[in-house]
Amino acid sequence: MAPLRGCLIGRFQPFHEGHLRLVEHIADDVDEIVIGIGSADASHTKRNPFTAGERVMMIRKTLEPYDMTDYVVPIEDLDRNSVWVSHVQSMAPRFDVAYSNNPLVVRLFEEAGVEVRQTEMFDREALKGSEIRAEMAQAKGWRRHVPDAVVSVVEEIDGVGRLQEIC
Amino acid sequence: MAPLRGCLIGRFQPFHEGHLRLVEHIADDVDEIVIGIGSADASHTKRNPFTAGERVMMIRKTLEPYDMTDYVVPIEDLDRNSVWVSHVQSMAPRFDVAYSNNPLVVRLFEEAGVEVRQTEMFDREALKGSEIRAEMAQAKGWRRHVPDAVVSVVEEIDGVGRLQEIC
Amino acid sequence: MAPLRGCLIGRFQPFHEGHLRLVEHIADDVDEIVIGIGSADASHTKRNPFTAGERVMMIRKTLEPYDMTDYVVPIEDLDRNSVWVSHVQSMAPRFDVAYSNNPLVVRLFEEAGVEVRQTEMFDREALKGSEIRAEMAQAKGWRRHVPDAVVSVVEEIDGVGRLQEIC
Amino acid sequence: MAPLRGCLIGRFQPFHEGHLRLVEHIADDVDEIVIGIGSADASHTKRNPFTAGERVMMIRKTLEPYDMTDYVVPIEDLDRNSVWVSHVQSMAPRFDVAYSNNPLVVRLFEEAGVEVRQTEMFDREALKGSEIRAEMAQAKGWRRHVPDAVVSVVEEIDGVGRLQEIC
Amino acid sequence: MAPLRGCLIGRFQPFHEGHLRLVEHIADDVDEIVIGIGSADASHTKRNPFTAGERVMMIRKTLEPYDMTDYVVPIEDLDRNSVWVSHVQSMAPRFDVAYSNNPLVVRLFEEAGVEVRQTEMFDREALKGSEIRAEMAQAKGWRRHVPDAVVSVVEEIDGVGRLQEIC
Amino acid sequence: MAPLRGCLIGRFQPFHEGHLRLVEHIADDVDEIVIGIGSADASHTKRNPFTAGERVMMIRKTLEPYDMTDYVVPIEDLDRNSVWVSHVQSMAPRFDVAYSNNPLVVRLFEEAGVEVRQTEMFDREALKGSEIRAEMAQAKGWRRHVPDAVVSVVEEIDGVGRLQEIC
Repeated sequence: MAPLRGCLIGRFQPFHEGHLRLVEHIADDVDEIVIGIGSADASHTKRNPFTAGERVMMIRKTLEPYDMTDYVVPIEDLDRNSVWVSHVQSMAPRFDVAYSNNPLVVRLFEEAGVEVRQTEMFDREALKGSEIRAEMAQAKGWRRHVPDAVVSVVEEIDGVGRLQEIC
Repeated sequence: MAPLRGCLIGRFQPFHEGHLRLVEHIADDVDEIVIGIGSADASHTKRNPFTAGERVMMIRKTLEPYDMTDYVVPIEDLDRNSVWVSHVQSMAPRFDVAYSNNPLVVRLFEEAGVEVRQTEMFDREALKGSEIRAEMAQAKGWRRHVPDAVVSVVEEIDGVGRLQEIC
Repeated sequence: MAPLRGCLIGRFQPFHEGHLRLVEHIADDVDEIVIGIGSADASHTKRNPFTAGERVMMIRKTLEPYDMTDYVVPIEDLDRNSVWVSHVQSMAPRFDVAYSNNPLVVRLFEEAGVEVRQTEMFDREALKGSEIRAEMAQAKGWRRHVPDAVVSVVEEIDGVGRLQEIC
Repeated sequence: MAPLRGCLIGRFQPFHEGHLRLVEHIADDVDEIVIGIGSADASHTKRNPFTAGERVMMIRKTLEPYDMTDYVVPIEDLDRNSVWVSHVQSMAPRFDVAYSNNPLVVRLFEEAGVEVRQTEMFDREALKGSEIRAEMAQAKGWRRHVPDAVVSVVEEIDGVGRLQEIC
Repeated sequence: MAPLRGCLIGRFQPFHEGHLRLVEHIADDVDEIVIGIGSADASHTKRNPFTAGERVMMIRKTLEPYDMTDYVVPIEDLDRNSVWVSHVQSMAPRFDVAYSNNPLVVRLFEEAGVEVRQTEMFDREALKGSEIRAEMAQAKGWRRHVPDAVVSVVEEIDGVGRLQEIC
Repeated sequence: MAPLRGCLIGRFQPFHEGHLRLVEHIADDVDEIVIGIGSADASHTKRNPFTAGERVMMIRKTLEPYDMTDYVVPIEDLDRNSVWVSHVQSMAPRFDVAYSNNPLVVRLFEEAGVEVRQTEMFDREALKGSEIRAEMAQAKGWRRHVPDAVVSVVEEIDGVGRLQEIC
């Protein structure tokens, strides 16, 4: 029987503890998890400091110790809402249910006939990416909000230096 | 110390036994392997029948039993040779050495100052993707040239039916 | 003798009574009318809720009872002002005069040597698209500002539900 | 009750008698017809001599005397097979069944869950576009294969001169 | 021996006296100067009123009397920070050092291993492009802040009329 | 009085003696010359080995000793014939007459109302770019067909090595 797959879409700038808890919850629902990294073509901005490759590294390294089958795929922006679901479906392994708390993403999946579950209940207490990035730009406090593997990646690529210079 | 990473670029239409042997050889050289799926935006053609997501599934499922750290990332075509290396570097985790037997790819990495190793010695006996696709279009013979996990994926998505209809 | 054709450019989010009166006025000036739907690739946003196809349907259905020759063509954004006029000319039947009250559009046509007539005099009392969309998002009042055919289209596609969810 | 709509996709370089007979047959099946002009962004080549706007004019002028509701929409190439159906659906009014004899188009609609009917039975005797274009380039014979309205459009835009110069 | 080349990146909307002084300073440092015109695809907006070609004309005409080897190349926006340096390098003659006071540009060149020198010290007293454009839109005062050759170009293309109409 | 400007479009892979003689002839006709480098985004292929920046260098270095006002601008491919003339006009200084012997280019300028002069009479005896590239790939003979400045550029960038590796 084909495994049940869930797909979580986010920008993951950076991948933080809130995201990790969300992945853990989804893992209880499904057999395999697809993680789609949105705005994959964006990087080096205040809102999107990290490249897709750096975000792939953060997520794969964090999930390595877990016993789950995951697929981590960058999703470049198309700037065409009406074809966005097809675009995601072409870049990702086939999935049965999508997870998001972004109203536009929810609506687009619904109109395409894909089951979608709101994630608000999971990440209510989760930290905001924008706040973690603000802390990074001040080089303090951000470490406690992200998994250890993410700390390593940010340090390997001088992520703090990048944020400080471009902000 | 940062792990040594190698990056293998291919179209993987489909991922076959030759590719798998190549991955095994590269795994002996490096700590972690990045697999870049080229022409990620192409699908449903005789030359590129499978979507990026389907190819991600083939590769991750095949490598799952192996004890290696892998990153499988779709790389959309940019049709700009001069920026292609930067594009790959932005979609992939940082890597130290690239593997390819495509003369253009080799030259582009060389001009960008990236170490590149020719893979011809590894896959000399490997099957050609074009021949496997021809066998698929005739619905016979292809199974023995691809890993079991790839057989499962091709069957899950009716890959043979697709090739027969579009050829 | 070749018919005199006028081209009206707008986003038509949605096509409303002000637009209809404008079309009626232009129809007095010319033999045939081209209606170019701008930002055709945008949809599912607060500012551009409807797809190009939905807007084509609104306009064609509204104009069906009229005895005029019309051409309704979606115009995708190019984000290149300097080639925009050529882009419109390639998507639309040849036209002799353009109608717009957008200063940029007026200037671009002028620099390209196309006669352009300001439409301000016509739609002075017309409703604003932004206000009609705001009423749609509250599911009340919008019906009286759009032709009956547009009401039908909005209902067929659950346009009110879409606006409410994405706003 | 919502009308039943059929969508015919073609390049229509030019719109000829075979296409017209096909439209007449489809009109018997459905309430309204959508005609999608493929490769809308191509023009001035041997294979695609006419702009989208010129093709819109050919088709609308030909269908004007008919008592049917038609929508004629240019469809720009995306070079992404996996999102092509969504792209068509966003540019066209919602449709229930697609008509095509192109195996790739048939497959793409099928995989997207859209009903598709092969048109081979209709246009078996139809002329080939390539042959009509060859006749145009020699300025003889092409007139009898296209509707009168198309003859007028080709003459208005000096289509024969264009083909002769670029071939 | 290969000449030492410096590359100055800017939007030059318009090229003004501050830019000219900066070029003069850079000319003391290097043998040849490359001037990259950023946002080359933008025009006819309040922030980017002039086309790339108009800006090429402004700069070449201004530098004509100088005894220096210059290369003036339009650089279209790619909206991909991670490949931007490669894009510039492909459009420009090979250069040894880049000059910019834009923090993002500085960071991108640094990460790509290109030597970059901040230009703040040079243009501290330079006029702001935004202020000159505001003066142009009011048709007064702007002439004294730009080289004579730029005045001629702006007049040849009715730059003031354009700014007034689109603002 | 505004100077009379001519625009020569070519790919210049590489810029050779035939091109130079053509430029000399055009310089007799006009006050200033614009040289548009087509397919500016192509490089590292057998047909388009050199980047736009390398071609800019070849041309500017060759023309430096001449007493003429020249503008050398890269023109990226748009793959939209119908907007190509506008694209060239936006990247180049305003010009009065275009020079080309490419039938498509001639037709596109004519349809846009730009005066165009065929260049066949000038470069009849000129060498073909394809033959010079074939000689480069064999590392012999090509030097005598290109200006000295081009020899220097090709050597500076190891152009022969590039052609040999990618062919």
